[in-house]
Amino acid sequence: MGNHGIFIELACILLLARFLAMAAARWGVPSVLGELLAGLLLGPTVLGLVEPGEVIRVLAEIGITLLLFEVGLETDMARLVRTGTKSVVVAIAGFFLPLFLGFAACFWLFELPLLVSLFVGGTLTATSIGITVRVLADLNRQQSREGQIVLGAAVLDDVLGVVLLALLYEFAVEGGVNWLSAGRIALFAGAFFVVAPLIARPASQVIKRLELWSNNSPGVIPTTVIALVLAFGWLASAVGAPEVLGGFAAGLALSRRFFLPWGTILKVDQDFAHKVEAQVKPIIHVLTPIFFVTVGLSVNLREVDFSSPLLMPFVLLILVVAILGKVIGAILIREKLRERLIIGTAMVPRGEVGLIFAEMGLRSNVIPDPLYAALVVVIVLTTLLPPFVMKSFYRRAGEVVEGEDRLTHGSAC
Amino acid sequence: MGNHGIFIELACILLLARFLAMAAARWGVPSVLGELLAGLLLGPTVLGLVEPGEVIRVLAEIGITLLLFEVGLETDMARLVRTGTKSVVVAIAGFFLPLFLGFAACFWLFELPLLVSLFVGGTLTATSIGITVRVLADLNRQQSREGQIVLGAAVLDDVLGVVLLALLYEFAVEGGVNWLSAGRIALFAGAFFVVAPLIARPASQVIKRLELWSNNSPGVIPTTVIALVLAFGWLASAVGAPEVLGGFAAGLALSRRFFLPWGTILKVDQDFAHKVEAQVKPIIHVLTPIFFVTVGLSVNLREVDFSSPLLMPFVLLILVVAILGKVIGAILIREKLRERLIIGTAMVPRGEVGLIFAEMGLRSNVIPDPLYAALVVVIVLTTLLPPFVMKSFYRRAGEVVEGEDRLTHGSAC
Repeated sequence: MGNHGIFIELACILLLARFLAMAAARWGVPSVLGELLAGLLLGPTVLGLVEPGEVIRVLAEIGITLLLFEVGLETDMARLVRTGTKSVVVAIAGFFLPLFLGFAACFWLFELPLLVSLFVGGTLTATSIGITVRVLADLNRQQSREGQIVLGAAVLDDVLGVVLLALLYEFAVEGGVNWLSAGRIALFAGAFFVVAPLIARPASQVIKRLELWSNNSPGVIPTTVIALVLAFGWLASAVGAPEVLGGFAAGLALSRRFFLPWGTILKVDQDFAHKVEAQVKPIIHVLTPIFFVTVGLSVNLREVDFSSPLLMPFVLLILVVAILGKVIGAILIREKLRERLIIGTAMVPRGEVGLIFAEMGLRSNVIPDPLYAALVVVIVLTTLLPPFVMKSFYRRAGEVVEGEDRLTHGSAC
Repeated sequence: MGNHGIFIELACILLLARFLAMAAARWGVPSVLGELLAGLLLGPTVLGLVEPGEVIRVLAEIGITLLLFEVGLETDMARLVRTGTKSVVVAIAGFFLPLFLGFAACFWLFELPLLVSLFVGGTLTATSIGITVRVLADLNRQQSREGQIVLGAAVLDDVLGVVLLALLYEFAVEGGVNWLSAGRIALFAGAFFVVAPLIARPASQVIKRLELWSNNSPGVIPTTVIALVLAFGWLASAVGAPEVLGGFAAGLALSRRFFLPWGTILKVDQDFAHKVEAQVKPIIHVLTPIFFVTVGLSVNLREVDFSSPLLMPFVLLILVVAILGKVIGAILIREKLRERLIIGTAMVPRGEVGLIFAEMGLRSNVIPDPLYAALVVVIVLTTLLPPFVMKSFYRRAGEVVEGEDRLTHGSAC
């Protein structure tokens, strides 16, 4: 007893997020924006009703890990590998360009100190894999060719981001950089991503056996699958990779289209895969909105001094860098121009990853308050604008994008 | 990032609880015992691997509130009212007899101080509604006549328990008792229980409308129903009633057999009720085991000094009082003897409610350490023994109780 507060906070989060997501879908806007808005409304920016404590933060992380699990479950590994080179180009260019351009703009144009400029560049490298994936799902384009390229690139960006964050943090705190440990993180994270689905694969056999052993007791699949996803989230972060990639790897392992590198396609029990989806989705539906709401909650736009004369030019320039840095990377690959623009735009949202970077800079006393506020404005804009732009790209091409209100929630939250 | 620990703790809890629950069912033991055992194994008694922090405790409370929601959902209010008088007799006798007998044994036999004796008596009044309900479900007797009587009595006992705990705590801390505030708690808790289902009823209409408005988007029902249950859990504790009763009231409101006191049976949409069950059950399956595991986790049998010469007589006497106090109450009603014995036995588990009482006594320095340890042993025995006894009652009567491994998990966890 005594947890009254958290019960009503969670109820508010769930209800407002669901209501605004549905309203957004009704008005033809990707529903994730409704959930982000719910966070802005409940958080310090507007009402200040909810302050995300440990419980909400953990539920949010479980939610995003489960969303990536679902994405993995629906991913065709063969296709992911086929479009792999393009994903690598998009990821690497979209990582180094914003880093360099952001650094250059701060260091030479605004004459900020070296470390500060590096942190701003670092903040701009991030891609919010959660928001990117969710926007694609909202537009029902998760399974498209460009969706696959974006997914692969976002996964790689997440690994690169973790390595850079570790490097910058060390540089800020210790004044030097240990390339060896950074290399080790990169190696582990990369190896994890290749090995994890292979490790997780036998687990799906065990779950299937357990279910048979218990005479198809309906509780077996949700509990064991959630436990598997949590264990792989933990394993990912234990080797230094982002937790969400653990969820993604577990999803790949349980997907209908799991295949081994040497071309063998393992027989997958369709009935089992269907059961997993049907019984785990309600849990994903409840937990993922909590994640997107916390992204909104962790922003405080009241702290921004909108009267500052330097704010607008800085925000505009950094915003242009943030967008161009990602779009140029996508322009380099061989696809139709429209697809390249869509891919580039899909990589723009910085979301929670950008916020983590900026906050790390603030907390290690590298980034001063006004600069942090300006970065938050840039991150919010990169997160809120791309869904609209992507939608209009698809609209202009005459593709059917309506009915998101239904399709969306069918595929991801 | 940085929640690695909690991810792997939750994974361990879910896996071990599920595995031991299935093993228990295989061996013909109610599966809740497997989950309690998982808690004992993971907790300080054996391995000491998991220490339940805020996140696990909140998830456990959400789990038990959802379990009571499910019980409410499957409850026929008309039948509950019909057996109401018997429930009242069982609850009141089963409350005051252990209180008085426990007090008498401590005060006159063991010559313990007045307040200590009162706390021991108070600890013995508790009935763990969660464990009681779960054992009935494990034996597939939730919908039976005796199951209804036990459910009503357990609900009433929970309200009485909260009032007594408030009284004793005040007495321990302030040295006096405010009957007015105790009466207010009793009044509010009682009123809540009558009024809450009526308030919650329109909510089910709103949820149905929302689902239509969103073109049957599959996320609507789980998120809104969970939010409703959480809001009512919060409301319950805001008026001083146990949170779980909020879940129960919300369940009653959404059940297929909702009726208003003046005899009108509201038309209930069977399709909607079915959807609610199908989409909320996976979430209940994942969260309720966490509750039963935390009951096991919160016990530390290592603290018990088994070599103490006074331990055995004290434990035995208090155990007899704990069992007789509940069984005598059930003997008073008019049912077949076997049913009365089953009802009495079902009321015996003290579970987490007893532990809360004993811990409150420990923390307010009323109950000394060795006495607390002895009480914990009594509570553990009252929790672990009744499921076996109930099962053998049903077996002896030649009723089919096998196949729990399937039926169990169909109805609860």
